[in-house]
Amino acid sequence: MQVNDSQRGRFISLEGGEGAGKSTLLRGLEAHLRAQGVDLVVTREPGGTAVGEAVRGVVLDAANNELCAESELLLMFASRAQLVRQVIEPALAAGQWVLCDRFTDASYAYQGGGRGQPAERIAELERWAAAGLKPDVTLLLDLPVSTGRARAAGRGEADRIEVEGDAFFERVRGTYRARAAAEPARFRLLDASAAPEDVLGQAIASLAHLFAGHAP
Amino acid sequence: MQVNDSQRGRFISLEGGEGAGKSTLLRGLEAHLRAQGVDLVVTREPGGTAVGEAVRGVVLDAANNELCAESELLLMFASRAQLVRQVIEPALAAGQWVLCDRFTDASYAYQGGGRGQPAERIAELERWAAAGLKPDVTLLLDLPVSTGRARAAGRGEADRIEVEGDAFFERVRGTYRARAAAEPARFRLLDASAAPEDVLGQAIASLAHLFAGHAP
Repeated sequence: MQVNDSQRGRFISLEGGEGAGKSTLLRGLEAHLRAQGVDLVVTREPGGTAVGEAVRGVVLDAANNELCAESELLLMFASRAQLVRQVIEPALAAGQWVLCDRFTDASYAYQGGGRGQPAERIAELERWAAAGLKPDVTLLLDLPVSTGRARAAGRGEADRIEVEGDAFFERVRGTYRARAAAEPARFRLLDASAAPEDVLGQAIASLAHLFAGHAP
Repeated sequence: MQVNDSQRGRFISLEGGEGAGKSTLLRGLEAHLRAQGVDLVVTREPGGTAVGEAVRGVVLDAANNELCAESELLLMFASRAQLVRQVIEPALAAGQWVLCDRFTDASYAYQGGGRGQPAERIAELERWAAAGLKPDVTLLLDLPVSTGRARAAGRGEADRIEVEGDAFFERVRGTYRARAAAEPARFRLLDASAAPEDVLGQAIASLAHLFAGHAP
């Protein structure tokens, strides 16, 4: 069946480092999009499927401190391969919109920039494991590492990735910003040091063009 | 440190389809090698590490019947990447021998031949995720699919892979046999329809050359 572009749903991903306010923005955006009548699927990475949530448990468990960078990268894409085929692609094909808490950019930032896995390796996995799927819009919540970590510090027990040092998170941020600069048509860089309602306002303005030609 | 080849341990993998008698042979070989004074590590795939065993639970759980072929392949290599770095390479470097219940050949047979994942994709993962590591000897327990499945049928609940049909297992067997034919120096094809003690005898004879130049 030939699907007209205006019938296909829109795919929005949210990215950002620790303490950037991703969860708060996700809730705000979800409420906004539903209020606009958008038939919305909200999901996350790693996770979003039975397999993905099991993988999430392994990857974030602070007890798995021996997990090597190669295995971490493969686990992230195992979760993603399943999420794309089981949740995201079927939803988009059915005209639903998908709002995803992290997507492939996070692998470039964390497993690439953070852990040193080569970008070409990640690009190759993106091609076949994620079926080359890219979000229509990626909202990147950007703020200084020290600010984000100070905010995140109040949250209790840190997971296996949150225990990394500042240098790791600087590399993550740097990779995110470089990707945003390289793909300005897809990325929207949001100032995450602003008040939550301002960040939500920036995000909503960044999505307005998605409604053009689309009847929710 | 330069490690003399005679100091490095030997790496033996066991491969074969359902009902081929792999577990029985593993126990027999383990007893034989230990009796020869070999300092032996016995492990398995998927599994062998905390991460690998968690992956094993996901991959074999019959409830995960939506698991896509791409995700299955990535999970197998996530387990393997960790096993190679955490268990197999350190053991071999320390002069221990490693006996592993399945290794990368199983991905070519099951995820490649069985599920149709391209061989080049698996070869690429073998190169970086498994660090190009190959067993010194791979014992392939070969027998007709119908014979193996009749034997395995008595074992109770089938896992997510065991529930596949005969055509799947014929492709698995064909891929294993083709790999054995292509790498005769590494593979030993054992007639798994023989009595267990004969299979063990064949296996022991197949390993004799590993002791040359190695003082266990």
